[in-house]
Amino acid sequence: MIRIALAGYGTVGQGVMDLFHKRKEAIEQRLGKQVDLPYVLVRDTSKPRDIDLQGAILTSDVRRILDDETVQIVMEATGDIDLGYRLMKEALEKKKHVITANKSVLSLHFEELSEKAREHGVYLLYEASVGGGTPLIKPLQDLSLHGEIRSLRGLLSGSCNYVLTKLREESISYEEVVEEATELGFLEADPIDDVGGFDTRRKLRILATLAFQGKTEEADISLEGITELKQEDISRLGERGYAVRLLAQAKREGQRVQASVHPVALPKASFLGAMDGAENGVEFFGENFIKVSFQGSGAGRYPTAHAMLSDLEDALFELRRKDLVAKKEPLHHEPFNEETRFYIRSAEPLTLPVEEKWGENIWLTAPIEYLQVKSMLPPGAVAIPIEK
Amino acid sequence: MIRIALAGYGTVGQGVMDLFHKRKEAIEQRLGKQVDLPYVLVRDTSKPRDIDLQGAILTSDVRRILDDETVQIVMEATGDIDLGYRLMKEALEKKKHVITANKSVLSLHFEELSEKAREHGVYLLYEASVGGGTPLIKPLQDLSLHGEIRSLRGLLSGSCNYVLTKLREESISYEEVVEEATELGFLEADPIDDVGGFDTRRKLRILATLAFQGKTEEADISLEGITELKQEDISRLGERGYAVRLLAQAKREGQRVQASVHPVALPKASFLGAMDGAENGVEFFGENFIKVSFQGSGAGRYPTAHAMLSDLEDALFELRRKDLVAKKEPLHHEPFNEETRFYIRSAEPLTLPVEEKWGENIWLTAPIEYLQVKSMLPPGAVAIPIEK
Repeated sequence: MIRIALAGYGTVGQGVMDLFHKRKEAIEQRLGKQVDLPYVLVRDTSKPRDIDLQGAILTSDVRRILDDETVQIVMEATGDIDLGYRLMKEALEKKKHVITANKSVLSLHFEELSEKAREHGVYLLYEASVGGGTPLIKPLQDLSLHGEIRSLRGLLSGSCNYVLTKLREESISYEEVVEEATELGFLEADPIDDVGGFDTRRKLRILATLAFQGKTEEADISLEGITELKQEDISRLGERGYAVRLLAQAKREGQRVQASVHPVALPKASFLGAMDGAENGVEFFGENFIKVSFQGSGAGRYPTAHAMLSDLEDALFELRRKDLVAKKEPLHHEPFNEETRFYIRSAEPLTLPVEEKWGENIWLTAPIEYLQVKSMLPPGAVAIPIEK
Repeated sequence: MIRIALAGYGTVGQGVMDLFHKRKEAIEQRLGKQVDLPYVLVRDTSKPRDIDLQGAILTSDVRRILDDETVQIVMEATGDIDLGYRLMKEALEKKKHVITANKSVLSLHFEELSEKAREHGVYLLYEASVGGGTPLIKPLQDLSLHGEIRSLRGLLSGSCNYVLTKLREESISYEEVVEEATELGFLEADPIDDVGGFDTRRKLRILATLAFQGKTEEADISLEGITELKQEDISRLGERGYAVRLLAQAKREGQRVQASVHPVALPKASFLGAMDGAENGVEFFGENFIKVSFQGSGAGRYPTAHAMLSDLEDALFELRRKDLVAKKEPLHHEPFNEETRFYIRSAEPLTLPVEEKWGENIWLTAPIEYLQVKSMLPPGAVAIPIEK
């Protein structure tokens, strides 16, 4: 008998419970052992929930899970920074496997928790933390095994991408789209975590650390959200065949790493340019495998729960490497830079080399470096790099 | 000490040797065991090769490998139907793990070889057989575990896609592109296996069987290659925003399966429509995970060798399920059908419902079923379904 505790019973937690019971019998048959989910940890045990607890005990006492030696696996879906961290850390110390969707805690404590898992010989699995239902972490761990990844780029916020897609397809202001997306539940009540790019940066911090086998922290990643963009910018670039995306990117040359999250105009007929709506997708470039890309549902109850259940099966069947902690390549972080053409909207005159005038206050620059544009941009102006 | 025999020393085999020796030390360090590759099986031992044998014995005697009890893993990269089959079958019977890139043998003997592996408790791994360097088989095995895949579609021939992309981008005839691609080594001297869709069908046979957990054979898959297409068809659809692709698709409803390989016009700004050049990509649709897509290098020495090495590490570290044979869901196969608009080129008058005339002898039909179009098409006419 293997006993699992589930922490958190919101959107994702309830999805985990539902899928767990749908698949329980098939898992037990293949495993030759019973698998049970006796505890659900919540903050408020009196709140009503959609999904039946199937006999599990609802508790708000974290000790009940941590001190129960028969609980071998903790599935963490609280979304809570403090509780999530304390729970995962102590669970690993008590030799319980941990499966989490909590990207905030991972971003803050990735190396420490990975090291705890290694030290105590248990799994720390987090497929659901980046890309929701997209199988991303597991193939990335395989791809990065021999240090062959040179760069990666991706769209990691389904909600940002939803906003940007709407702005291109409809005559609607940025403010209206954000309001609509918030009402539909695509954005949080305070949307700045998404549209400011903070959520994307957290995920890039995890992906880049795995990809380059050394620590890349949030502070190492330059950040610019989509809050300064106007419908006009996006539709003008749209007319010329470009889709504006909040692109997360990181590249490595030797021990030098550049990582950034900022809006980029990509050709519509490209992998990431064609990716409309709320999906997530990432491209990895490297030696030998050359290039591989993954795309899928970035969020939602069932895609995220599906990813946590995949991790659960890997833990039950011991199908993952335990020696794969975030490695310790000594990396040197530089400001992100790249030469490309820029779309510029500016009420003030430009001192940048201009190639074309696209309209009132709108220009296309000659190829120029990102850092140079940033330093020479008049106040209030917007600059969007355009990829060929 | 774990001993590996490599069968085949052509493009892929030499890539395997090269990567194996580049990664050997890192693998041994993690595994805590020595790993050696003492034999290379070839047809002609006198032929010169690019890549150094690193002390391995070159032999044309298959018994040398099969009868050596110290050989625990066979990596098969012969591309030969008869030898490949005999070697893999007997290796599995002798409890050796088998890693193969040989889609022809898998397509012919998938169930038998899978069953042999299960029976003898060893691995049969074939990541390199479909999609070259794209991690596809391993995530597909995970996704299909609970019978949740409803449909899949993909581009599985890099060479066909190269030909179709060239035809759209350049004013060049089908015959000229095929000749050029053959000279560049993208197509075999006799290109019919690729452009006739036979190679794609073999790969779809493997993917569909895994996805739906029951046998789908080549004979169950309707087939139409790209040989009847003209530059004119592709450029006219290109002007209207479509990319013509040789699409492999399969869908399941209950126990009923429809599978097909035929040219389809896809919007350029879609995952598969944007996929120009020699890449491979597949989309899977299903319950819970909703949709996931994978894309990567479909062929080439190092991408394919990389996939075989990934399988090798999974076998060495026992990171794959052994109970995953092609399952035995009793499936019923129907002719592929779907309602959509069609691009028609025909010198004869049409009896199909026409929506627009696009030019001399070129029409766009109203939405109509695939099987109906096929039955009513005048001789010599070409029909390409158009996806929204």
